Amino acid sequence: MQFVAQIKPPLELPPLHPGWVWLAGAGPGDSSLLTLQVYGGLQQADVIVYDALVSRDILALAQPGAELRFAGKRGGKPSPQQRDISHLLIRLARAGKRVLRLKGGDPLVFGRGGEEARSLVAAGIPFRLLPGISAGVGGLAYAGIPLTDRTTNSAVTFVSAYGAGGGMPRDVDWTALARAGGAIVVFMALSRLVEIAAALITGGRPASEPVAIVSHATLDRQRVLETTLGRCTADVAAAALEPPAMMVVGEVVRLRAALDWLGAMTAGRRLDPDPLGRQDSRRAG
Amino acid sequence: MQFVAQIKPPLELPPLHPGWVWLAGAGPGDSSLLTLQVYGGLQQADVIVYDALVSRDILALAQPGAELRFAGKRGGKPSPQQRDISHLLIRLARAGKRVLRLKGGDPLVFGRGGEEARSLVAAGIPFRLLPGISAGVGGLAYAGIPLTDRTTNSAVTFVSAYGAGGGMPRDVDWTALARAGGAIVVFMALSRLVEIAAALITGGRPASEPVAIVSHATLDRQRVLETTLGRCTADVAAAALEPPAMMVVGEVVRLRAALDWLGAMTAGRRLDPDPLGRQDSRRAG
Repeated sequence: MQFVAQIKPPLELPPLHPGWVWLAGAGPGDSSLLTLQVYGGLQQADVIVYDALVSRDILALAQPGAELRFAGKRGGKPSPQQRDISHLLIRLARAGKRVLRLKGGDPLVFGRGGEEARSLVAAGIPFRLLPGISAGVGGLAYAGIPLTDRTTNSAVTFVSAYGAGGGMPRDVDWTALARAGGAIVVFMALSRLVEIAAALITGGRPASEPVAIVSHATLDRQRVLETTLGRCTADVAAAALEPPAMMVVGEVVRLRAALDWLGAMTAGRRLDPDPLGRQDSRRAG
Repeated sequence: MQFVAQIKPPLELPPLHPGWVWLAGAGPGDSSLLTLQVYGGLQQADVIVYDALVSRDILALAQPGAELRFAGKRGGKPSPQQRDISHLLIRLARAGKRVLRLKGGDPLVFGRGGEEARSLVAAGIPFRLLPGISAGVGGLAYAGIPLTDRTTNSAVTFVSAYGAGGGMPRDVDWTALARAGGAIVVFMALSRLVEIAAALITGGRPASEPVAIVSHATLDRQRVLETTLGRCTADVAAAALEPPAMMVVGEVVRLRAALDWLGAMTAGRRLDPDPLGRQDSRRAG
């Protein structure tokens, strides 16, 4: 499915200076979802401190001789290593290195980028924040699921299944969230499906509400399971889906029958232009 | 602020075939926030059908000889032209062109990408969805505002100030949204500040809750106004901010005192590592 495109220099990109740290998002996995500025960071960095969700294809774009340091965490548990990672970034910057801190997705969407940035500020280290394609945006596009659509929802909420203490987040009122309307995208959802589905049904969402679970979004091993709030726990267990995975709740999931471009390209899936049965899309046909 | 980086070919990117339409996101404005795959689309497309929010710097990256067609809409009003745009894409694809449909931000985050895709499906035109950096993610990073942070919020909601009919969206319960907790990012907020602030205060958010208005995010003319729910309407009128603009509601706005890397770089702003007064970030200093 790939071909070799000539990327034409020159292109003006931000410079990564010695002693600086770039806190950057690598996107959900597919290396072609990297931004140009993060690609430029890979080509300039002396040291790349990367998380578990940064793919090998992306690390392969680093300049020859760049040092690659794994600083991964797995699961949603509170990390004993966060201080160590911040100390490492500070030490490398003070040694005059060009440091690229590379995280999966976007560094400020459940990525703890703000915490690492504050440590750098406290230490007097100059830094830059480089956005990445959030899995909640780009990952769902590869599953053929829009975040918003005029026929279904004017709002979408990103919520983590893990709060600061490792339990369900205490700052989220799930009943109110269920009632607010709109789609809900739950990050790191897989091991908390029972609690989340129950909370949303208690809040008033019907057990028949469409749900999609998207695992390994944008990678070759991406899997998408379409189910409902009432059935999702059993269906996910039967399908043996692996983390990382996101859970999408809402009518938008039904639009996948029209928008699964990747399924159409790779498996010849026949798309339905009117998945909601409203003929809302045939106007221009 | 810029320098010229050598982008090293070869890089494997998806091919844009004749007769195909790519529905792609250009990001919030800064051309270095383009993804590699959309950059590849600009280099391959015969025709680029672009929206008002796609910047001139980005269009300048098109291959020589590419036809640039403006299909912009301004404001959040229902568009009489949506059918025409879909018809244009279909006509171009049927003529065997490689078509890049380029939208500001992400095509599936208030971008109507799903509607255009369904028109293509109805007409039997093959397409691909290419995510972009949403203004709600990358635009706020340039303002130094994280979407989530373990010290402030485990959820963030993107909501449009305009529903399908042009009024406030009818599928959103603002009282429940206010109570759900978390940060709220309102797209196309500028002309609806009065209604939105009133709805959130009615729902229980304090008038003192921090608010930021981010105008022309990521561009040289970016402006950020820090205010509160109670004061935002008056402050925005006094500051004469221009659309496009987003409104951010929540404690995350206070983290800007630590994270405004762009202000630190361009205006020598001194950053505060502990903007919430909790010393949560000094652990690693």
